[in-house]
Amino acid sequence: MADEAAELEEALRRQADTVRRLKQGKASPEEVAEQVAKLLELKAQLGTDEGKHKFVLKTPKGTRDYNPKQMAIREKVFDIIIGTFKRHGAEVIDTPVFELKETLTGKYGEDSKLIYDLKDQGGELLSLRYDLTVPFARYLAMNKITNIKRYHIAKVYRRDNPAMTRGRYREFYQCDFDIAGQFDPMIPDAECLKIVHEILSGLQIGDFLIKVNDRRILDGMFAVCGVPDSKFRTICSTVDKLDKATWEDVKSEMVGEKGLSPEAADRIGEYVQLHGGLGLIEQLLQDPKLSQNKLAREGLGDMKLLFEYLTLFGIADKISFDLSLARGLDYYTGVIYEAILLQPQNPHKEEPVSVGSVAGGGRYDGLVGMFDPKGRKVPCVGVSIGIERIFSIMEQKVEASEEKIRTTETQVLVAAAQKKLLEERLKLISELWDSGIKAEMLYKKNPKLLNQLQYCEDNGIPLVAIVGEQELKDGVVKLRVVATREEVDVRRENLIEEIKRRTCHP
Amino acid sequence: MADEAAELEEALRRQADTVRRLKQGKASPEEVAEQVAKLLELKAQLGTDEGKHKFVLKTPKGTRDYNPKQMAIREKVFDIIIGTFKRHGAEVIDTPVFELKETLTGKYGEDSKLIYDLKDQGGELLSLRYDLTVPFARYLAMNKITNIKRYHIAKVYRRDNPAMTRGRYREFYQCDFDIAGQFDPMIPDAECLKIVHEILSGLQIGDFLIKVNDRRILDGMFAVCGVPDSKFRTICSTVDKLDKATWEDVKSEMVGEKGLSPEAADRIGEYVQLHGGLGLIEQLLQDPKLSQNKLAREGLGDMKLLFEYLTLFGIADKISFDLSLARGLDYYTGVIYEAILLQPQNPHKEEPVSVGSVAGGGRYDGLVGMFDPKGRKVPCVGVSIGIERIFSIMEQKVEASEEKIRTTETQVLVAAAQKKLLEERLKLISELWDSGIKAEMLYKKNPKLLNQLQYCEDNGIPLVAIVGEQELKDGVVKLRVVATREEVDVRRENLIEEIKRRTCHP
Repeated sequence: MADEAAELEEALRRQADTVRRLKQGKASPEEVAEQVAKLLELKAQLGTDEGKHKFVLKTPKGTRDYNPKQMAIREKVFDIIIGTFKRHGAEVIDTPVFELKETLTGKYGEDSKLIYDLKDQGGELLSLRYDLTVPFARYLAMNKITNIKRYHIAKVYRRDNPAMTRGRYREFYQCDFDIAGQFDPMIPDAECLKIVHEILSGLQIGDFLIKVNDRRILDGMFAVCGVPDSKFRTICSTVDKLDKATWEDVKSEMVGEKGLSPEAADRIGEYVQLHGGLGLIEQLLQDPKLSQNKLAREGLGDMKLLFEYLTLFGIADKISFDLSLARGLDYYTGVIYEAILLQPQNPHKEEPVSVGSVAGGGRYDGLVGMFDPKGRKVPCVGVSIGIERIFSIMEQKVEASEEKIRTTETQVLVAAAQKKLLEERLKLISELWDSGIKAEMLYKKNPKLLNQLQYCEDNGIPLVAIVGEQELKDGVVKLRVVATREEVDVRRENLIEEIKRRTCHP
Repeated sequence: MADEAAELEEALRRQADTVRRLKQGKASPEEVAEQVAKLLELKAQLGTDEGKHKFVLKTPKGTRDYNPKQMAIREKVFDIIIGTFKRHGAEVIDTPVFELKETLTGKYGEDSKLIYDLKDQGGELLSLRYDLTVPFARYLAMNKITNIKRYHIAKVYRRDNPAMTRGRYREFYQCDFDIAGQFDPMIPDAECLKIVHEILSGLQIGDFLIKVNDRRILDGMFAVCGVPDSKFRTICSTVDKLDKATWEDVKSEMVGEKGLSPEAADRIGEYVQLHGGLGLIEQLLQDPKLSQNKLAREGLGDMKLLFEYLTLFGIADKISFDLSLARGLDYYTGVIYEAILLQPQNPHKEEPVSVGSVAGGGRYDGLVGMFDPKGRKVPCVGVSIGIERIFSIMEQKVEASEEKIRTTETQVLVAAAQKKLLEERLKLISELWDSGIKAEMLYKKNPKLLNQLQYCEDNGIPLVAIVGEQELKDGVVKLRVVATREEVDVRRENLIEEIKRRTCHP
């Protein structure tokens, strides 16, 4: 589309020119008419979808570059997330960006259609990873690891409909923390929620809420509502849409597309509107129908334990047990959760409005077993932080605050006061680099002093080390503080010390 | 293969069904025989090829996972590389892992066949990036940037024949530093070589040599040797193989495959054996044939300037002007270079032997212009560090030294001396996390003290904070130093301070 748009713009420019020449008597009305026809044609092309003819200068749909300013914000976000993961004793691993296609097959339910496949160029059939969880499970099974706490930060790929202004991309980062191993119930699960709480608090991006539920409670609920076993997963996918769609739409999908009876759907409808804390758990443990179901009882029992641990962690007030939370992926087997940011949509309304999910996860005790040749299970629980939306918010915050972000860490610019000092600059900067000083110089033989000082202003470089003929004779360098314009002669042998003193503790 | 396996399974099911119907008199023996034949055929198919019937638990060919120990080494390597890039004032950018296929088209010459394409699933045609240079040029043109010094560290993809033991992968990291902009000759070029020198020195992986040449010198050489203009690039690709093949093989490719006259090849053969420093540059500037060629003269003049700057940087002794260095990629226009590690292959031999290229780069003044709609050029020079080989060497070094690498940074394990103290452990660890202490606990309700201490030994955790009934009564925590087994009671309110004191300055 970018191409046609450029072509249209060019044609419009040409037409404006022709009209001008027409007024001057230099063009015929026919010429104008012809150009109008061409314009209409181009406009029509723009109307039709993806009719591209020429080279398009863009990144693929749903992806973007990060410029240095954006990278500075991204690194700040990563620092907080990685700091939290390390505080909880996690190791780090990495896996390839693609997996054998069959590794991903049958893990994502209805979302599998969003997987990017590589072209068959001979050899193995490959797909880009859709998340970091399935590669992690493959890694555990392949290396026969039964016990690990690791994080993994990497890009994943989904052929989804991008909504980039809201932080929805086809290539996006996931920051995953998972605990694998056979442990006592809900202790690792509670730690995952603690981690989400620490990260979202640390990022200072406003109020948030962590919804929790349990696949066993959902399955129990489906059973007592009269959903046939074979439809559990597909109905679960439909329930998952409740955060974006109304109950009416969700019900209509259940009944119309998925063939559920309207009565069963209505029974589900009653449950999925419930959310609360320990009180709701107690209430459901007494629920005449739900309490009869073994899976639901197990799920509710663990949910109670989870809330006890969350209370000990002091974070229960941010957690909501929410029966409408379903999570789309097939592999969850127990607790599931999702964190959303709350923002007052309208200052006049009091109810905070969700701006979307920024973290999610849950327990998947069966996934590793799907990869193990003998089906040996490794219980796992984990959480995935989606940074794109967080990043969008941080970026807006920075722009609003007009805070100036430095994109380099340069301590000093090596400058010359006169011409013909390139060699001296090269010698000095080399000394600085070799002593660990972050230093730059302009790549000109004879740059003007003013340009060199301007470069420091533009890039936030705090110091200038100026060599001049007199300074060379005297064995000194003139050190200038950009902010105050203060200048001081520093003996060559003390220069490194002096630069460190002035910049290493800002 | 997964498909055949499924088909076989389905056929087996059908046959079982037919046998059952045969018993019931509902199927003919012929039907069964036909199905058996089909079955044998399917089985034969499965037997051929790679002989896999079932799910294969592996990463794709030419790729690998990084386990926590490997990640620790990788991060150490990255720290040195990023530290150097930042010391030279570089900003950082990131680009998507895939580009529009046409973005990569026509940039890599004969290597283009190694590009990974994505499957056409509707929408744009995409390819995985082959290097970081072409995406960088696309980024510059797209954002109309004419002046930037940036680094970019990311994985790139090549459908090459992997030799993983020697650090050759299909997915591998490149660490790129590039300077874009119109500057005075050879100043940025010399800085790139300084950076390579700093990184390879900093990594302490043994002696190295940086070979330099210039595409203009190569082209001038081809011209005076009688290579037709149209064959410059393809002959250049062949010369590039000299680091792995003998001159005889290279000559035979030039004459046999590329159709060069044996006389021209022999003339090239005389030049490409030359290598040296300023002396060789002076000699070639006097060379009766080469000095007649404008391009070669320009290249040699700049090479002389480069060596002057490298001398000022104090690194000329590690640089070799080498006429056999060609670099395979199409886009280079001026200086090119490649760093190799030297290792004494055999302690009895004195000549050090190359263990392969670990960095390479050069000047590419035309690449950005290929993307700009108006062909505006942005001169660029850069270097790419290939860390896989470096990483292999570091890994071997670590293994040989039996140095124990920690893969977590945990400062303290929260442990219990008696049973029924899970709640107290959860409360304490939560306090520690909230104060920024890196802390772990075992995910058991009632872990044995011995197991808790063993966990610290295994993971290099220096401290244990032990809660017990008596300690709770006294308002203290027993702090145990794992290495010395020293134990000291610390008042609860002083615990965080004490842990920081004992672990923050190791």
